[in-house]
Amino acid sequence: MPEPPWYAALHYAGRDFAGWQRQPAARTVQGEIERVLERVAGRRVVVHGAGRTDAGVHALGQVMSFRLTRRWEPPALARALNALLPDDIWVYDVLPGPPDFHARKHATARRYRYVIGCDEAAASPFRRPYEWALRRPLEAASLAAAAAAFVGDHDFRAFAAAGSDKPHYRCRITTADWQARTHREGYIFTVEADRFLHRMVRFMVGTMVDVGLGRRSPEDIPRLLAERNNAGASSPAPPEGLYLECVRYPHLAKDDRR
Amino acid sequence: MPEPPWYAALHYAGRDFAGWQRQPAARTVQGEIERVLERVAGRRVVVHGAGRTDAGVHALGQVMSFRLTRRWEPPALARALNALLPDDIWVYDVLPGPPDFHARKHATARRYRYVIGCDEAAASPFRRPYEWALRRPLEAASLAAAAAAFVGDHDFRAFAAAGSDKPHYRCRITTADWQARTHREGYIFTVEADRFLHRMVRFMVGTMVDVGLGRRSPEDIPRLLAERNNAGASSPAPPEGLYLECVRYPHLAKDDRR
Repeated sequence: MPEPPWYAALHYAGRDFAGWQRQPAARTVQGEIERVLERVAGRRVVVHGAGRTDAGVHALGQVMSFRLTRRWEPPALARALNALLPDDIWVYDVLPGPPDFHARKHATARRYRYVIGCDEAAASPFRRPYEWALRRPLEAASLAAAAAAFVGDHDFRAFAAAGSDKPHYRCRITTADWQARTHREGYIFTVEADRFLHRMVRFMVGTMVDVGLGRRSPEDIPRLLAERNNAGASSPAPPEGLYLECVRYPHLAKDDRR
Repeated sequence: MPEPPWYAALHYAGRDFAGWQRQPAARTVQGEIERVLERVAGRRVVVHGAGRTDAGVHALGQVMSFRLTRRWEPPALARALNALLPDDIWVYDVLPGPPDFHARKHATARRYRYVIGCDEAAASPFRRPYEWALRRPLEAASLAAAAAAFVGDHDFRAFAAAGSDKPHYRCRITTADWQARTHREGYIFTVEADRFLHRMVRFMVGTMVDVGLGRRSPEDIPRLLAERNNAGASSPAPPEGLYLECVRYPHLAKDDRR
């Protein structure tokens, strides 16, 4: 009989990772966590992440599932993991999961945040690893118009990395909002959807930034969605501005996580 | 005739530096800047920093001076330096200095900031490189009492690294304040003085934290100042919480920097 599932939520700083997914010869978040869980469990443990973030992308609310004996008390397991994990990963919530809990398959929505720096100080070493140091002003009304065009049910083939073959490309966007930061520092984009395609948020942000710079029109967004061709999108925004913010499990009430 | 002096202010993130001061076999801030200035000037250029920060210590307002032809326009020189410098150094202000300007000798005061995280989330990779992840509550009134005892003219031998022989150990502290951060995140200590001895802020903070944890009394501070013996101070606080915040040059009015 397999061991029971656990739920865990974590932060990671993307800079020094080749993304979430395990790779034979690169440092990845999944690889580091599985290495630590193997030490804790004394056997190989496979981890499933809710979102497969790319190289350089951060997480403030990645969720993962794995199977491990219930002999661990959750706070003790969290302490053991954090003691063994490198400083750029931090597990902040560990709970027994419901039967058969699977962090990717059971997630109903993911929320991402993208941070842009419009001022010169975005080049500071205290900000540069954590946002797109654009250092040019963006037009707020154009950003808002571009974002509004994404909300709803659409085929996002135009905003998916070429070559990411999927049975279908439909995503349901429930939130797509730009908020100004204080002191003219720039903007934060928040987007929530039932699913995201490969590099989708970065293609969306790259295209909207071209709108905000006046290089293209907000009307390009509905046109690109209708054309379903990735060649029309702008270059993807760089990874350092992107954060997986949270993952939703509506059937996973707090009490239910055991 | 030597080339004229320049003034420049900079940020750096301390994590990947063995401190400010040039060393033959280690990556230092001065070393990186001199390497870049040598490329810009086509000859060896010596840089003087206002404060010799230790390994791991950050700067939000380090000031440096160096000699270089006035053929450079200040904004073009700033752009050239930032284009060649690594991402963990950022020069945000470059100006022609007054005749014989020397960043260390002419500074009349330095201000440091020390950031402490008292909550569990201080272990997050987005905070951990930038503060002391203490993760225990501190008593605000005890911190305030301890800090107040430092203000004024004192012999700081008890708070200087052992072995740092100096003609004298007197420092005049004009500001020593703890401020609470929001959301119980912790505290920020701000200290300004005419001069600082080696590791002095970290010995002060380490000792005050022991006071804030209830391990020692605020009255220990005046006693240690009177005893002038480093053996009595607590262990120095770790470098990742410390920032050189600004350097004062009262005779350097804005108009005067050319």
